Amino acid sequence: APMAGELRCQCLETEAAVINPKHIANVELIPEGPHCGVPEVIATMKDGGKVCLEPTAPWVKIIINRILNSTTSKTS
Amino acid sequence: APMAGELRCQCLETEAAVINPKHIANVELIPEGPHCGVPEVIATMKDGGKVCLEPTAPWVKIIINRILNSTTSKTS
Repeated sequence: APMAGELRCQCLETEAAVINPKHIANVELIPEGPHCGVPEVIATMKDGGKVCLEPTAPWVKIIINRILNSTTSKTS
Repeated sequence: APMAGELRCQCLETEAAVINPKHIANVELIPEGPHCGVPEVIATMKDGGKVCLEPTAPWVKIIINRILNSTTSKTS
């Protein structure tokens, strides 16, 4: 799980196993910068857990694109 | 700016103008779900401001991919 505090990299390691997008509540993308030399992708799961994902992994990009392109008919 | 509270859509409208990726601190992707019928993309700017981006806009996808693919040589 990512460490607290934004003044350094929040992810010590990234999840290798593919996670089910249905269990994702949101995904946070943090660009690389002075605080951390690599971009970070942190998924918050519906159960509240946080998982660091590999930004360059193809399946991570697929999940991100699926989120961006998804709409259901019903609107609230 | 997005409204507080996750039990409904957080964005009333999305920013039409292209924003400078250098000013982005992080980007939050919220999948559509029972709370909101559309996916939402909320950028937090380095000055603390929050901006709702259009998930399907090409320039938004370019910014997201640029974040995912960027690494600087220095690591901290």
